[in-house]
Order: sequence, then C-alpha cells, then structure tokens
Amino acid sequence: MHKFSNIAIIARPNSGHLEQYVLQIVALILEFGATPFVDNQFELPKEFQQYTYSDIEAVLPQLNLIIVIGGDGTMLSIARKLVQHNIPLIGINQGKLGFVTDIAIDEIAPTLKAMICQQEFIAEERSLITATIKRENQNIYYSHALNDIVLSRGAIGSMIEFSMYIDNEMVCSQKSDGLIFATPTGSTAYSLAAGGPILHPNSKVISIVPLCPQSMSNRPIVVNDDVTIQVNMISGKEAVIHSDGQEYLSINNGDVITISKSVQPIILLHPKNYSYYTTLRNKLHWAKRLS
Amino acid sequence: MHKFSNIAIIARPNSGHLEQYVLQIVALILEFGATPFVDNQFELPKEFQQYTYSDIEAVLPQLNLIIVIGGDGTMLSIARKLVQHNIPLIGINQGKLGFVTDIAIDEIAPTLKAMICQQEFIAEERSLITATIKRENQNIYYSHALNDIVLSRGAIGSMIEFSMYIDNEMVCSQKSDGLIFATPTGSTAYSLAAGGPILHPNSKVISIVPLCPQSMSNRPIVVNDDVTIQVNMISGKEAVIHSDGQEYLSINNGDVITISKSVQPIILLHPKNYSYYTTLRNKLHWAKRLS
Amino acid sequence: MHKFSNIAIIARPNSGHLEQYVLQIVALILEFGATPFVDNQFELPKEFQQYTYSDIEAVLPQLNLIIVIGGDGTMLSIARKLVQHNIPLIGINQGKLGFVTDIAIDEIAPTLKAMICQQEFIAEERSLITATIKRENQNIYYSHALNDIVLSRGAIGSMIEFSMYIDNEMVCSQKSDGLIFATPTGSTAYSLAAGGPILHPNSKVISIVPLCPQSMSNRPIVVNDDVTIQVNMISGKEAVIHSDGQEYLSINNGDVITISKSVQPIILLHPKNYSYYTTLRNKLHWAKRLS
Amino acid sequence: MHKFSNIAIIARPNSGHLEQYVLQIVALILEFGATPFVDNQFELPKEFQQYTYSDIEAVLPQLNLIIVIGGDGTMLSIARKLVQHNIPLIGINQGKLGFVTDIAIDEIAPTLKAMICQQEFIAEERSLITATIKRENQNIYYSHALNDIVLSRGAIGSMIEFSMYIDNEMVCSQKSDGLIFATPTGSTAYSLAAGGPILHPNSKVISIVPLCPQSMSNRPIVVNDDVTIQVNMISGKEAVIHSDGQEYLSINNGDVITISKSVQPIILLHPKNYSYYTTLRNKLHWAKRLS
Repeated sequence: MHKFSNIAIIARPNSGHLEQYVLQIVALILEFGATPFVDNQFELPKEFQQYTYSDIEAVLPQLNLIIVIGGDGTMLSIARKLVQHNIPLIGINQGKLGFVTDIAIDEIAPTLKAMICQQEFIAEERSLITATIKRENQNIYYSHALNDIVLSRGAIGSMIEFSMYIDNEMVCSQKSDGLIFATPTGSTAYSLAAGGPILHPNSKVISIVPLCPQSMSNRPIVVNDDVTIQVNMISGKEAVIHSDGQEYLSINNGDVITISKSVQPIILLHPKNYSYYTTLRNKLHWAKRLS
Repeated sequence: MHKFSNIAIIARPNSGHLEQYVLQIVALILEFGATPFVDNQFELPKEFQQYTYSDIEAVLPQLNLIIVIGGDGTMLSIARKLVQHNIPLIGINQGKLGFVTDIAIDEIAPTLKAMICQQEFIAEERSLITATIKRENQNIYYSHALNDIVLSRGAIGSMIEFSMYIDNEMVCSQKSDGLIFATPTGSTAYSLAAGGPILHPNSKVISIVPLCPQSMSNRPIVVNDDVTIQVNMISGKEAVIHSDGQEYLSINNGDVITISKSVQPIILLHPKNYSYYTTLRNKLHWAKRLS
Repeated sequence: MHKFSNIAIIARPNSGHLEQYVLQIVALILEFGATPFVDNQFELPKEFQQYTYSDIEAVLPQLNLIIVIGGDGTMLSIARKLVQHNIPLIGINQGKLGFVTDIAIDEIAPTLKAMICQQEFIAEERSLITATIKRENQNIYYSHALNDIVLSRGAIGSMIEFSMYIDNEMVCSQKSDGLIFATPTGSTAYSLAAGGPILHPNSKVISIVPLCPQSMSNRPIVVNDDVTIQVNMISGKEAVIHSDGQEYLSINNGDVITISKSVQPIILLHPKNYSYYTTLRNKLHWAKRLS
Repeated sequence: MHKFSNIAIIARPNSGHLEQYVLQIVALILEFGATPFVDNQFELPKEFQQYTYSDIEAVLPQLNLIIVIGGDGTMLSIARKLVQHNIPLIGINQGKLGFVTDIAIDEIAPTLKAMICQQEFIAEERSLITATIKRENQNIYYSHALNDIVLSRGAIGSMIEFSMYIDNEMVCSQKSDGLIFATPTGSTAYSLAAGGPILHPNSKVISIVPLCPQSMSNRPIVVNDDVTIQVNMISGKEAVIHSDGQEYLSINNGDVITISKSVQPIILLHPKNYSYYTTLRNKLHWAKRLS
C-alpha cells in the first residue's frame, strides 16, 4: 500500500486563481494511486473527497500527507492547525520562493513525482512554540507558533515594561517596544528584521530578541528549546501578543505569559536537492557581494 | 536692567511635591531682582505673577527666561510650546540626570546664581523638526518635535509600507515597523534604542532610522537638516505618527507626511562646566568598561 | 574516601601576589582531608606535592579537581590543556568577577567548604571547539578553544575572502575582516563585541559571527554544535587564526580550516547559588535601566 | 576660451587594457577643442601632452579638469594627491558602478559631451579628513583621506586601548579593535561594514565608528566636521593607522593622533541626472525588497 494514500491539497481561501495547479496536483495524486482531498473552494467533480477549509480539522485524521500551495503565510496557518497531528507537509510556492514553501509552482510535476512515488525526500522536523496567557490565575489563552510569539507595545504611547524568568531563574527586567520569541524557522522572519541571529533549523534553540530595548546592553539571547520562559507584564498600555503575526490577544498589566516548545513538531518534506543555505542565499541575498 | 527680568518656573501638572524647590527658585529670582512667574498649581501668595499651565502661551510674550523642573519629558512638552518664541530654557532635573535637564535639583542655588546673576552660562541652540500631514490635498495636522517624529505601525498586524523622497529625489520604498526622524537632541532617545547613531547637538543633521526594516540593507541615514523629507504612506493598518512620543495622529493610506527643520530652534542655557560628552558617559554608561 | 582527594591549585605564572590566597586554599584542602598540588612558583614547604606550571600535564593524571585563581583568561589557558582529561574546574576570580571564574576571592573559605566538603555544587559541562588547519593536504595545526576560534585579517591592508561549508553544504562566500566561531561560553566575549548573540551555556550550538562583512545581509548564524564547518581561504594577506585570543597561526591562501566541537567538554563546578543570568546582569550591565 | 582647456586622463598603473577608452576620451577632448594630458603608460603619439603617474604633481598646476578611469579605489588615490589643488574630477568606472566613479564606461561619449561641451553637470564638494601623528612631541606623519582614517589593532593578540577628546573635551576611553573616522563619502565604505550610519554627502559631519568595542553602549557618534578630534594611544601591540585603506603607519603607545577636516575639499562633477540615492539603491541593494 502507498505510504501517502490520502493527500490533501490546501490553499488559502479565495485562491480560485490556483485552480489549474490544484487540478494538476490532483491528477498527479491519482496517477500515484493515492486519494486526493480537495478544498471545496475549487469546484471539482463530486467524486473527489472534499473538505471545507474552515473545517479542515474534520478530515485531518484521514490524511497522511498535506500539500500546501501558497506562500509562507499560508504554511504558518496550516502548521498551527496541524500541531496535534503528525502529518507531513509539502510546501509549494506560488510566485516567490518561500522559506517553508520551497518548491516552485512550475516544477510541481517532476518534484512531486520524485517525492511521492519514489519516496525521495528529506523529512525535517520543525519545532513550534506555545504561548499560554494567565490572567488573575486563570489560563485565558494559548496559541502555537511556527515562526514566532511576539509581545509588543500598542500603537499609541510608549515602551512596555516586563520582567522575564527562564526555568524560574530571574533573567532581566526590560523596558522596550517588545520581545520576540523565535523558533529556528522564525529566525529568518521578523526576528531578523529586529536584529536577531539566524538559527539553523537543526539547532534546538529559541531566540529571544528585544524590540528597541531602552538598554543598549540588552542583546538577543539564544536558549535551549527545552526551557520554560515566563514573562510578567508590569506595565504597557494596549500591549499585544501575536502568534506568527496572525493571531493575537491584548495583554493587561499583571498578565503572565509562558512560552515553551510545543509538544509536537511539524514535519516538512523537502525535495532531495534541498539545501537550507541555498534558500538563505536566495531569499536574503545572504552574503551577496555588492556589485 | 536685568537681562532675565521675567522668569517663569514650569513643572508638569500635579507636581505638588516640587513646591519646596519652586519656592527656593522663587526666592532666588527675587534675590536676583527679577520677577518670578509661577504656575498656579503651586499655591503661592497672591502678589506673585501666576499663570495656568494649560494657558502658558498667554504669558510667554512677557518672559525672557524659563526654568523647567522635571525630567526630559517635561522639557519636551515645553519646548514644543516655545517653538515660535525665543525664550531660553534652563532644565532642572528632579531625580535622575536628564539629557536636557542637566542641573541637579540639589545644586539649584549656586548654579542658578552663577547662570542668572553672573550671566555665566553656555547658550546652545537646539533644532526642532516639524511634521505636516496632508490628507486628500488638505493639510490636516502639524506638530513640532525636539526629539523625534516617529511613524509606526499599529498594535495589531503587520509592517507598514511607504515610499520616501528627500528634496523631491526618490530615496526608497520601505516595508518596516516604521521610521524615526530624530534631531541631534533625540538621537540619544528612541532612535538609539532602534540602532541609530548618536548625533552631537552641534551637527546640523537629521537622522532617519528604520524600525525593524524587512530589508537588512536598510540602514540609518543621516542627512543635512535643511532638506525636506516626504513620506507617502502606501499601506498600513492603524499606522500612527508621534511627536516626541507625546502627541500623535492616526495615519491613513495615501497620507503624505512632510518633515523639515522647524523655523526656530530653542535655546538651552547650560552651566559653564557643561559637557555634552560627560552627559553621554553618565546617562548611557557610554563606553564604560565592563567590570 | 574523599571524592576530591587530589586537588591542584593553579595560577598564571608570576602570580606571587596571590600567595596568601594559595596558602588559604592549601589549608582548606588539608582541612578537608585531601592532598593539595601546588604550583612551585609559590615557595611552599617541601612536604607539599608540587608541579611546574609549564609541565602541568605531568600531574594531570593524578588530579580529580583543579582550582584556578585568576581571571577568565587564566581559566581559558587551563581549559585548553585539560581538554583530553576529565577533571572538574573551580574558578576563583582575583579582582573582578569573571564569566567562568565566578567565585569572589574573599569568599573562598565558606564557598570551597560547601563545594568540596559538603559536595554542594552545580556541575556544568562546557563544550570546546577545535580548529584544524590543512595546508597542501597536510594537517599542520590544531587547537582547542573554550571561547572562540577567530579567523581575521592582518594589520595592514584590506578584507580577507573565503568560502564556508557546513557538513559539506556550501554556505557562503564572504569578504570581511574575519569570522568568529564562538561556543556558548565565548558568546559573551569577543563575539558579543562583534554583534553576536548571547548563547546560554546549555544550548548545544556554535555561533558564526562575521567581522565587518562587506555585505549587510551577512548576519550571525547559529548552528547545531554537531556540525563540521569548513572554511577555504581564498585570499588575504597576513590572515591569522586565533584560539581564545591566546594561540595563533598565520593562514595562507589555500589553507583549509575545519572547525568542530571538541570530543570532550570541560566540567565547571559552580556554587549552589550560581545563576548564569545573574552573572550576565552583573558583567554586562545586561538590561540595566538607564539612570 | 574653453573652461576645461587642459584635461588629464588618469588610470591606475598597469591599466594597458583601458587604452581603447583613453583613446576614445582623448578624441572627445580634442573634439571639444581642449588639450588632453595623458599618462605615458599609454603609448600615445608624441604630440600629446604626457606625464608620468608617479609624477603627476608636476602637471597639476596646468590642469583644470581630471578624468579618472577605474574604480573607487583609483579615485581615492587621486583625491588624496589633489587635496591642495582645486581641480574638479570626473569618475568613470570600468566594470562595476562606483560611489565616486559614477559614469559607466560605455556611456563615455554622450555623457562627457554633455558635461564638458555643454557644461551640464552637477558640481559637488566632498570633504577629506586629515590625520596627523605626533610621537614624542614631533609630528611624524600626516595623511589625507577621502573615505576614512582607521585606527586598528595588529593581526596578533588583543584589543587596543585609547582615549578620545573632541575640541579638548574628554569623550571616552575605549577598548576595542579600533576606530573608524569616516567622511560622508566614506560612510558607505568600511564604516558601513562596521555598523556605521550612511551620511549624505551634503551633511557637514564626520562619523566615528568603533570596531568591536568591548562596551556595548559604545555606539557610532556623528559630529560636526569643524571639530578637532584627538586620540591618545594608551596600549596596543602593532596598532596601525590607515588612510583610505591605502596608506598606513604603525602606531606606538603614547602616540597622539589628531583628526580634522582637510582645508580643501575636492570637487566631483556628476552628470545632470545624478542622484545620490539612486547610487545607494544600486550599490547597496539599499532597501531592496526581499524576493
């Protein structure tokens, strides 16, 4: 029996323009002898397994592979939903190359054939992190993130203030615009813009990067990803916590934010010739010589 | 006749605890043979010239010196009100030394005596910058700043996007959390936290410092302060523009922000032994050796 | 039998001024019922076990604890010599607190008593990294480092150029003043001055930090410490490679530098109340509020 | 009479491969009715005015325009020689666009025609800075720089230490790898690699940028270019001072380095459509969106 017998194709809502690619992938899946599950935003013949994007959790138990078409943003949304399951992901980018959507849309056919039929792929675990918010001793919110959890100030006014503990050790009190907790996957996203280091996906660490800290000695710090980080919000009008820049919650003074690695990683499947450093060079013009 | 014949003492509203210092300064002013103007939050005898803080503009034409007691924040508020006038300022800090409130509160007596009676002071011009916002071809707002004009994203969601022109030359398009326009005075405030350079107060420049720019090559740039900078807002939910972190306006897509040096500088009076670099070292632990 | 039966006391050559402390520690060791081994630069009575600093390797097989008095620099020298052995280290600082010499010299008595007699300590592994230089297919040099291996340009002239591979994957070509490979221990030393992140000692990573790279997108990268890093020297007059800033070798064009984690870590013993973050705050004024 | 009656063409020694372009420019100069002066490394007919590169000072008094072909490095060499004279420069780049050699070699004909015949150009002053070294109360060296004066440590060993004064005010003591003094022209060269800000050529400032300072609060500082900066060398084995990365002197402990703006600027002529910001965007991929 085929290892990838049930394969879902996922795109962001309102992705009608991607229908031709979805059809192409469906055809490939059928050719591989597997069953495609298709988002019903694409009006495919009734005989196909269909699901509704907003209700994708319903079909997850049946799937053993998910193909995402879109950008890194789409992949982030899906990854957060998948975190309890153990389904590998393939990312196909429409348009520009992504960090986690690393297959070009015009190379779908040969690439998927090699990856799915011939089982030629590199499987890579990527950790997520989880934020839990406690208010007046109640857990009021939790959220996973593949890229980053970001605590930041409101639009109006001034810096926020908080103290941070790691594994119950006092780390620091800080006055700043906020703090980024980035996974290796997220280290090349917002964290990089804030001056954080690049973390190779294999490194088992979390990066803690201050946003415009008042103290110049407040540098990014990288910690083992098995720690428990706690942030006690001291003051900050309209502070907000974001997961992957997509979900958010308003934070009150006195709230306690706990950050730790999510129990389950997601699994990314890359083509055999995948190289993280090649993606780095291509995406960031990393280390590119000046002309 | 005394050069500083009419001297106002200004403190932030609700500064009752500073009354003893205000009384001390009033006594000194009288001793110098000058007339004190006192904020009526301090309940001084009726024979003194009094004014209401919120209505200070009414007495400005009579004044030829203002003594500010408070922190740098108080000084910023006053400086913005003073920008059309030509009245020198002396800054007295309560508590911690400030960049522009550089006289310690417990040295009021000898310091003011030397500065006011013996005219021993260093007078220093500090430039302000002015932001004008044009919406649908109407000027809807303008504001002065002694420290900085900051365009930044809202609390929720993602980076803002805009293009910038200097003296009608295209500079760049940028996607970032925002942009700081800092005067030399403001270069040691928020700009420094965002990675901007320190600008000596004598330098006739404005520093333009991106906040978490998406592109790593987007570095701070320092330009002559006689330029006209224009920012065209392309996109950004809930973007905001701040002056000195104290006044703000919500910015819409399509708004045009113009930044230039204010016509009038303010004039700071420092004690004879003032040294900018000493303040730098004290305030920023600048270049302090690690223990 | 006592776990720490044979304890050496080590200080840098020409440390005659430390004799009083050495004597104090010798007395404590005897009180604990253990045997002290003392550097013969201190003229102790003949009945003590003595050794010559330059020939310390001769006594290492007999030792089960080493107490270092000095600064972090002394500790670095000792650590490199110890790398093949498995002897724990206690670091006592003379003068200012160090990152790895974390016991104040005036707290020797109670601290050593608790650590040695009552076995109350925190044992912490610290990884070293090893550099091997191959020239014309011959290994001509290797060196261990507890802090960092630094490849840098000569004093005269311009940037050096090299390419870097990790686990045989091409990472980048770079033109810069050099490259720092820092362990977590070294992340708070030279690497920090060059803009590298702080790495918690528990994180199993190596930080690669460029020195003044020509390309602005060339940011520090953090990789798992089980990798093999290879640097091929392309061009650079008078380039040099340093280990812990203490040993060095001139590098020629064409040389191949290989960096990987040393097989053996060293073991640091800290007092029970040791906290890495406390050291960070004390040493770096980390996250200290500006006055 | 023609404003640019005597025009020299300069290239770096051993630039035989540029002969075709030199001939092309000679032809244009003759067509403009002016007299070309040609480096005798190009074997032109005897009737042309010729000079020897190493002896160019001999012909400078006769010239009223110099055309440089090469890269920014060539321009830097020429600029330092020109500093006493008042001869405008046109920079033609062979190969890649330069910051100061801003005319593409394949656009020589129309560009020079417009600039020389039709006098359509933008004349821009660029300041140089001068370093003077005093050893045991003797001035032993001075040097001009169009880009930067760099004090830096030797290849072997550790940081250097020095104190800095500006206009006789103590600025700081510093332990670092060195210090860059950059002009606006040099702000996009080595200074940028070291984390310095970009300075617009119109700004009348000098940027002082530390190289890997031990103290994290030691940030770049920008000062008015009319100051006198003094650096007292405290300690540093094999320290060196460079001008534009091309000339250098070994620095001893106790040496006093004085930096100030050179008396004369050089004058660059740019084509009418020149824009500094366009060069920035092209050279630095400045603010380029990530793909």
